Order: sequence, then C-alpha cells, then structure tokens
Amino acid sequence: MVSVHLEAGQVVVQDAGVPERQPGFALIRLLAAGICNTDVELRRGYYGFYGRPGHEFVGIVVEANSPELLGKRVVGEINLACGICSWCLRGFERHCPTRTVLGIVRHPGAFAEFLTLPENNLHLVPDAVTTASAVFTEPLAAACEILDQVAIPHGSAVAVLGDGKLGLLVSQVLQTSGLRVHQFGRHAEKLRIAERRGVTTEVASDHLPETEYDWVVDATGSAAGLQAAVRMTRPRGTVILKSTVHGSVPLDTAPVIVNEIMLVGSRCGRMEPALAMLQAGSVDVESMIAASYALDQAPAAFAEAERSGVLKVLLFPPPERAST
Amino acid sequence: MVSVHLEAGQVVVQDAGVPERQPGFALIRLLAAGICNTDVELRRGYYGFYGRPGHEFVGIVVEANSPELLGKRVVGEINLACGICSWCLRGFERHCPTRTVLGIVRHPGAFAEFLTLPENNLHLVPDAVTTASAVFTEPLAAACEILDQVAIPHGSAVAVLGDGKLGLLVSQVLQTSGLRVHQFGRHAEKLRIAERRGVTTEVASDHLPETEYDWVVDATGSAAGLQAAVRMTRPRGTVILKSTVHGSVPLDTAPVIVNEIMLVGSRCGRMEPALAMLQAGSVDVESMIAASYALDQAPAAFAEAERSGVLKVLLFPPPERAST
Repeated sequence: MVSVHLEAGQVVVQDAGVPERQPGFALIRLLAAGICNTDVELRRGYYGFYGRPGHEFVGIVVEANSPELLGKRVVGEINLACGICSWCLRGFERHCPTRTVLGIVRHPGAFAEFLTLPENNLHLVPDAVTTASAVFTEPLAAACEILDQVAIPHGSAVAVLGDGKLGLLVSQVLQTSGLRVHQFGRHAEKLRIAERRGVTTEVASDHLPETEYDWVVDATGSAAGLQAAVRMTRPRGTVILKSTVHGSVPLDTAPVIVNEIMLVGSRCGRMEPALAMLQAGSVDVESMIAASYALDQAPAAFAEAERSGVLKVLLFPPPERAST
Repeated sequence: MVSVHLEAGQVVVQDAGVPERQPGFALIRLLAAGICNTDVELRRGYYGFYGRPGHEFVGIVVEANSPELLGKRVVGEINLACGICSWCLRGFERHCPTRTVLGIVRHPGAFAEFLTLPENNLHLVPDAVTTASAVFTEPLAAACEILDQVAIPHGSAVAVLGDGKLGLLVSQVLQTSGLRVHQFGRHAEKLRIAERRGVTTEVASDHLPETEYDWVVDATGSAAGLQAAVRMTRPRGTVILKSTVHGSVPLDTAPVIVNEIMLVGSRCGRMEPALAMLQAGSVDVESMIAASYALDQAPAAFAEAERSGVLKVLLFPPPERAST
C-alpha cells in the first residue's frame, strides 16, 4: 500500500505492507486525510519524529470485532489510551500518561491506504456529512475543547487572534455557540469564511485593542500573538492558548499577575460535539479546503501546506482504490 | 514628620509636612510598616518610581469623618478605586482601571509618620492581633487571594515553590484552609516556620518532582521557578503565579498546551480573611520578622531587606512619637 513517511526533514512515499489488526483494533481503509500544522512541524523535525504522520482522517472500517462498525465511515479519536489508569477512569483518556498518539507518538499515522485504531476510538460519520468535511472532525474537536475547559457566559464578546485553520474553526465554533466573536487576522479572504458565519472580522496587523476582552483565544502560533493576546485581555480575563509556538515564548508576567489573567492551554477535544456541528452544518469547513492531492503526491502536498497563508490540504488514496 | 523617599535608586529620609486629609479620607499615624519585595523593586527603579513607598502598615486613625474609626488601630486596602466604574460596581475595586495604589502608583506610601487613605479602605485590627503581626495583613491577603480565584478541593495536595515571605504565607494559608501543602525551598531555617504549622517541607535546589501536582503555586519570583512549576503540574492542573518576575520570562508553551495547564496570575486580596486568620492565630507571621528599624534608619532597613534570604523587615516611627 502507499504510505507516507517523514525522515530527516523529507517527505517520502513508500510501498508498505497493510498493517496487522491487533485485538480490539479496527483496520480502516483511508478515504481522505488532512495535513495539520502539527504534521508540518513533525516534517521540520521539531520533535525528532520519524515515521508515518497523519491524524486527521476519514476511513471505512474493513476489519473489526464489532459488526456495527464494519463497512462504516468513521473518524477516530487520535489518543490511544491505556483505559485503566486514573486518567482514563476519570474520562481524561486524552491525558493518559502512557498514551500513544496516531501519527504523532508511537502509532503509525493516517497518511497511508490503511491504518489501525482501537474500535473504542472510532465515531461513525453521519450520512449528511461529506467525507471532505469529516476530515475536519479532529481539528474541529480541538476547537470545541475550549467550551469544555472554560465556561464562557452566553453572549460574551470573545476575541480570536489568528486566521489560520484552527483560528477559523475556533471563531466559527464560538460564534455558533452563542458568543459574539471578533476575529483578528492578516488575510481578508480567509477571514471572509468566518465572516459569512456571523463572525465580526478585522484585518489587523499590529494595531490591536488593549485591555478590552474578557475572553481571548490565541490561535496565531506566534510568540507575538500570545503577547498581544495578554495585552488585549481585561483584568480577571482568560486567554486560551490554542496553538503551540515552537520553543520558548518570552512572556511578560507582570500584566498576567497585575491583571490576574488566566492562561489556559488547550489541545484535543471530544469528537461528539464536532460531528454534531458538521451534521448541523453550523460551521463551514469546505471553504477551508485549499487543495487536494493523491497520497503518492504527498511531497507536493506538504510543500503546498507549508506555503504561507494556505489553509487545509487534503490527501486522498489512489483513485482506483478509493472507488472500491 | 519623618518620610522615606526613593529617588534614582537611593533611599532618602526627608522631613516632610503632615499630609492634608481630603474629604472621605482618614489621616493615619503610623504604628508599624513592612518592607515588601515590591518596595525593593521600586528602589531598584524597575517601574520608574519616584516618591514615598510603603503599602504594608498598621496605624491609628487621628482624623476621620467616621467617629467609629477615630483612635482605632487600622490596616488598609492599598488600591484607591474610583468607586463608580463597572469594575468597582462588581466588587473588583482592586482592578479599577483608574485606581491609584498606596506607595506604588500615584498615592504617597506608608513609610512616613502620617499617611492618608479613604475611610472605605480601612479595616479595624482586632485587639487580639499585635501591631507587628497586623503589618502582615496586606501580604497575607495576597496569599488568601488564591482561594478567591481557584476552587481547590478540600484535602488536595498543593505544591508551593519558594520559601520567601510570600511563599511562607501562601503555604500556611493553604495548609490551614484544609489543603495538604508540600513546600519546596532552599533554606531549611525558613521552611521550619511553615513546617511548625503542619506544612511538609523539602529543601530542594534543582531536583523537583515532575508532573505530580494538580495545584502548584510559584512564589519563587524567578524565571526558573515558573518553568519548574509548569513541569511539576499534572495534565489539566493549575499553576498560580504568585510573584512577579521582572522582565520577560521564557515560557515553553508546549507542556502548557499538551497538558492543558491553567496559569493564573494572582495579586492583592481581600483583607477580611487575612485579619480573621491573624485573629485566630492560624498562621505564624511573627517568626518571619527578621529585623526592625526606625523610619529614619530606612536606608539600613532597605539594605537589610535586600540581603538574600532575609524575611520581613519592619519600620517603626520614631519612639518618642510612637508612644503618644
């Protein structure tokens, strides 16, 4: 099968064997996958990653113990948890200390014709949701995670910094959840996607409001973005850190302490609310698709995804097999 | 009257006029004051401060509109708020955007024989509380502030990093509030103060536990302390930033985001719970007094307070007047 590997900064297309299904796991045939900023960071070698990336996917279950999964279109929770530790028992499988992570930590990713995941990790994709849209389930769940972490009163004004993939999902999720979102970005054409869903948008480079929001989401992925987010936040307000900045960020703790600001790190989320939003059509993800490539064109796909300002790049299996 | 000024890095003793009482304000004769790390930072010129510092004090009200204050021993809330803005109306006077701050921002401080504060800012000191202990009301209120900001379940294990003045108050406040505190510091003799009040203490330099606490308070005042605090925190845990580090701190956002850690800046607190703790004798503050100086010895007092490892240095008015 076609399989994409990262090694020493290179994207390499290989011919690999179909993975063997372990007990409790499903064998999944890929329908579509998405390239995330994390994949780009793995390619750049930030985490010493070596192997097959890919954690945003939709597939068809071809082998499984549970008959209700067989032949069904699924997406999957990317954290493979032990299921028995105190974290797992409290429902925090995503923080299981011995977890592996699909395409990120010691579990081969989804950029291949076939992948495996525990059956418990899988969610059926509602018929109303297209395969291309369902690829966004994982990042959309990450956007929804904010609502599981902090209780933002209905109708509150929320600032979202950044108009990349995650920023656009975050702004739409918060807007459709009854908040008044003001999104600041650098690209009018990208902001328009959120604008069409009711988000107030503003092309702003360095001129950002100060001490104005009780709730600010930093989805810029830049050190300057985090600093700006803190400056925009009112006393006793909350900044949600929705994107990793590689390396250390210089943080001025004085305004954080004087204004008693809360900074909340935010990562993966539950897929149920994300699938519900896709089914209801309450977020526009298809407008975020910038390009589609076949798996064996992965080097070109990564190059495209790494171009500044490009939104979601999708990967599809070779056409002759996708039509099976 | 004797008045202490900071100018261009120097501590200067001056002879100044007794301040004029404005409407709504009380004129207070100083009984005792304490030198805080913030005063040391003001002396070092970090904030371009110029004038009279001092915000930890106990005094006697000598002039006031309210007869129930006259002749009484008081401590005072240091933030002078407008009283009419949305922050004040919500009970967040300490975040009033137009506030001045006793001895810090545009209101002359307590390092003088007389000072003024709004009568609304004053709290009577219970008879059972000695004047020397009552000097700790303000920093103790800052320690209590943590309990107003985050809901730590009774019996939880909490790590406190740092054994300076604030660290020792924080550890005692949390321990006496039903939490199991483990305090890490560098000075066995200072840690003993908290240990006698039931706090588990550990002299630890660089060997600190990792991913072990749901609640960590950083009271080190150092960049390394904040980094260590984040590393000690378990997924979904909370780090309370209880001391400012001057300038920018390099913060690695990756563990904050991956482990979804919450960082909470924490500053001044309400004086009521602090006075109640002093009255109940549930925290030992007198053991933290390192030295006492007369106001006109302020340069020596500051030098002593700035020596590494020295706890609280107190200032007293000239003896002939204090006995009035």
